[in-house]
Amino acid sequence: MQNRQILSRGDNVKNSIGREIPQYIENYGTPKLYDGPFGNIAEATRRQPVFTCVKPGENKVVESLRDAIVKCGLKDGMTVSFHHHLRNGDKVLNLVMEEIANHGIKNLRVAASSIFPVHSPLVKLIEDGIVSGICANYMSGPVADAVSEGKLKYPAIMHTHGGRARAIESGDLHIDVAFIASPAADCYGNINGVEGPSACGTLGYAVPDAMYADKTVAITDNMVEYPACPIDISQEYVDYIVKVDSIGDPKGIVSGTTQVTKNPIDLKIAKMTAEIIENSGLLKDGFSFQTGAGGTSLAVAAFVKEKMKNQNIKGSFAAGGITRFLVEMLEEGLFKSLFDVQCFDMYSIESYGRNMKHQAMSASMYGNPHNKGAVVNNLDVMILGATEVDTDFNVNVTTSSNGNIMGGSGGHSDTAAGSKLAIVVTKLIKGRLPIIVDSVTTVTTPGETVDIIVTERGVAVNPRRADLLEKLSDTKLPIYTIGELKEMAENISGVPDRLEFEDEIVGVVEYRDGTVIDVIRKVID
Amino acid sequence: MQNRQILSRGDNVKNSIGREIPQYIENYGTPKLYDGPFGNIAEATRRQPVFTCVKPGENKVVESLRDAIVKCGLKDGMTVSFHHHLRNGDKVLNLVMEEIANHGIKNLRVAASSIFPVHSPLVKLIEDGIVSGICANYMSGPVADAVSEGKLKYPAIMHTHGGRARAIESGDLHIDVAFIASPAADCYGNINGVEGPSACGTLGYAVPDAMYADKTVAITDNMVEYPACPIDISQEYVDYIVKVDSIGDPKGIVSGTTQVTKNPIDLKIAKMTAEIIENSGLLKDGFSFQTGAGGTSLAVAAFVKEKMKNQNIKGSFAAGGITRFLVEMLEEGLFKSLFDVQCFDMYSIESYGRNMKHQAMSASMYGNPHNKGAVVNNLDVMILGATEVDTDFNVNVTTSSNGNIMGGSGGHSDTAAGSKLAIVVTKLIKGRLPIIVDSVTTVTTPGETVDIIVTERGVAVNPRRADLLEKLSDTKLPIYTIGELKEMAENISGVPDRLEFEDEIVGVVEYRDGTVIDVIRKVID
Repeated sequence: MQNRQILSRGDNVKNSIGREIPQYIENYGTPKLYDGPFGNIAEATRRQPVFTCVKPGENKVVESLRDAIVKCGLKDGMTVSFHHHLRNGDKVLNLVMEEIANHGIKNLRVAASSIFPVHSPLVKLIEDGIVSGICANYMSGPVADAVSEGKLKYPAIMHTHGGRARAIESGDLHIDVAFIASPAADCYGNINGVEGPSACGTLGYAVPDAMYADKTVAITDNMVEYPACPIDISQEYVDYIVKVDSIGDPKGIVSGTTQVTKNPIDLKIAKMTAEIIENSGLLKDGFSFQTGAGGTSLAVAAFVKEKMKNQNIKGSFAAGGITRFLVEMLEEGLFKSLFDVQCFDMYSIESYGRNMKHQAMSASMYGNPHNKGAVVNNLDVMILGATEVDTDFNVNVTTSSNGNIMGGSGGHSDTAAGSKLAIVVTKLIKGRLPIIVDSVTTVTTPGETVDIIVTERGVAVNPRRADLLEKLSDTKLPIYTIGELKEMAENISGVPDRLEFEDEIVGVVEYRDGTVIDVIRKVID
Repeated sequence: MQNRQILSRGDNVKNSIGREIPQYIENYGTPKLYDGPFGNIAEATRRQPVFTCVKPGENKVVESLRDAIVKCGLKDGMTVSFHHHLRNGDKVLNLVMEEIANHGIKNLRVAASSIFPVHSPLVKLIEDGIVSGICANYMSGPVADAVSEGKLKYPAIMHTHGGRARAIESGDLHIDVAFIASPAADCYGNINGVEGPSACGTLGYAVPDAMYADKTVAITDNMVEYPACPIDISQEYVDYIVKVDSIGDPKGIVSGTTQVTKNPIDLKIAKMTAEIIENSGLLKDGFSFQTGAGGTSLAVAAFVKEKMKNQNIKGSFAAGGITRFLVEMLEEGLFKSLFDVQCFDMYSIESYGRNMKHQAMSASMYGNPHNKGAVVNNLDVMILGATEVDTDFNVNVTTSSNGNIMGGSGGHSDTAAGSKLAIVVTKLIKGRLPIIVDSVTTVTTPGETVDIIVTERGVAVNPRRADLLEKLSDTKLPIYTIGELKEMAENISGVPDRLEFEDEIVGVVEYRDGTVIDVIRKVID
């Protein structure tokens, strides 16, 4: 790429887990090096936004996206932000970026909490120099491929969910204009996520954007009468409101019916996981739990639910992205409350709209390490996935086996750091490749925060958790060292070829505290 | 007082409504002069709090108030804050201040959103030099008397509800430690106002304190299991939690049964007020309304309710302090939502705890002029009280007929500035004194924001509102000039003697935008 003659200056240095990080990264700056999960948590501050006050009688509704862009004073080189609650059904990012492109503005940074295949039109904007930077907590599809191929002018910054909130609040990620996809909005900018054709439930990821951006624009296809109660984002933080035809495609917004897996291998992993939870000593009154929306994770939840019912255990809360399965556990009295940062299905959206024990949380409340205590800090058990795990228990969920970006932390690192028991569940071999390796391609989550790996063929406890190993010693669980698990996998699938990389850095992986835990280099074809 | 040799330096200057303000006020500084209700609203910013992050495993619950004071690093000269949702049943301010006194800390500023007779122990702390400054939006009882008598070292600062939020957010009022009386709190500092023996409903006035203080302490008599959903103040903002025996006396917390007046004069005023509202053109679908909890105000609400039902009008919202009467209007479908900054009775507290259309608002969302639009900006009609009104329509609700502090703006100035129709309802004569005077003792709310005065003997429309006068011209309402109303009153009760004042300034009345609208001088006995 002609515009990246210099991609790094000076020698590489190693951060505390031995990843080689350049002393200076062009178009990123001097990285703060990762130094342990709590190495950069002490005092913090929040940025001081400067904003224009709104007087009585002033109208905040503007005629068009173009008007909003003009009124916000959007200029070359600025940062615009988006949230991903509409997931692969989101139309707002593309609508806004198309209008920005038409308006002749260029060299923008797009800070989207996540980027999905639906956002493929961004690729052309990257090629045309309209978009030169991206920050995201998760990225998959054509945009992730383009970034991996080195098409983006600046390295992409990969955040965690809590880390993005931290970066926005602290001012490390200064958002000039936040565009908030709004399932319902009123004429004064109150927003809720539970009404309208694009209802998505809570708007947790968008809260820091709205509060700390210089300008905030609500974009809605559903203007409701004032006030848009129950309010998720308040009029105090919204400058302009724009009505568009449609902000989302409901088919892409909800994940459909999230279901417990029927695959026997996944069920085996889930059952072992539930047994570990039971033996950890954490499964008692006040229990708290987070899991993803995948089939294996839900199977873990199902086994845990059964144990809670049998033992008459009243849990405290389930947290994170919320599925029907967890709502039903709330409704059955197995949890006191839900902390919901995003709803995965219609049942959850409806529950959030009616049940006060189904509580919204912002991304900051969820996982920001630089506040007075995030919800992840109170998690007992977290169920995590993995693309790769290495013998130091480092986990990669950012890059695929071919070295390209195909994910990102989301809440992975946040919950691993916060929870008392962070369990990685994975098949030992996926796509004919062993999951356990000597060294992961990209470190998303440091092994220091991962307690145990569960595969269908065996379980490996992090040696830092001698207490956990002790607790599991009376079970019949197949416990091995992580090295033994790796060998087991390699005996079946062979040792995979190592990927080779260019010097060029296409992505910087920021840990939740803003330090650099790894960089993503361009793969040699 | 020996410690106030110099109370003002330089000449007085007049602000835009002709009140004489010293160019410099000792122990206050150089006042910004009031210059119209929207003279100081353009760009604004929020302060940058610096705080200590909380890591997983850290315990936020401390053993005693004394521990909390020590851990917060409370020192001489600092500012501590309190909210007034427990009203005259509040025990927290006294508990904390007693502990501070025992701890030997002195020269403190107490920023309480309001001060009631129950806070009389503060008087001794003022006399002993432990408390040298007070900021409040409302003050009555022994503390107000002590301030009026010049016992406080520094002039008290009287804020409005929205102005206090503005001052806290901007950093004009820097709070070192906020002590939050918490009807329910969990071990991680989530707070709600709806559970426990001291339930008070929403905690709107405490929100800016919690968010922008350097340290925030939750004080509760009701530790609940984590999480204290539905959460009013989030764990993100709370440093420490202290359990005490009791935070409040329920008899003083709720106002008892708030009832429509049966006094025929008040009913006459209320009926005329309702007729004005009807003829203003505002009483139609989307109508919004705020009134106090007094008998006349509720009578206005009752007449308005009748008109809404008869004319099948669906209102938008009622706002402010919420009473059962307004909750019932919500429940009958006469309003779409309630915006609640404080609940006045048990019925409202229970409604807030169960009805999602009964929405909490912070003091900032309610009335801060320096945000992107407060709720008061969307008010159609506001019903206000008055101790004095002058011929410029300026209203005093801060000082009594003897010149002593006995109230304060609360939301008076905020709602007058925001609403389309600000109506002052009052008897023409109270305690044998005419309410309408040449010049009010203290300006709380500028006449520029007051549209009409309603008394039992006549109505006066602010000449700035020729449009309103025109709309009322076809009614049989007894319309007079404000001068004629004044004469009418004086003909009955005579012209009262003018109070005489010393130079000494005991209070500074800040308008909601932080400018000085008036000062309160010590009365000559």
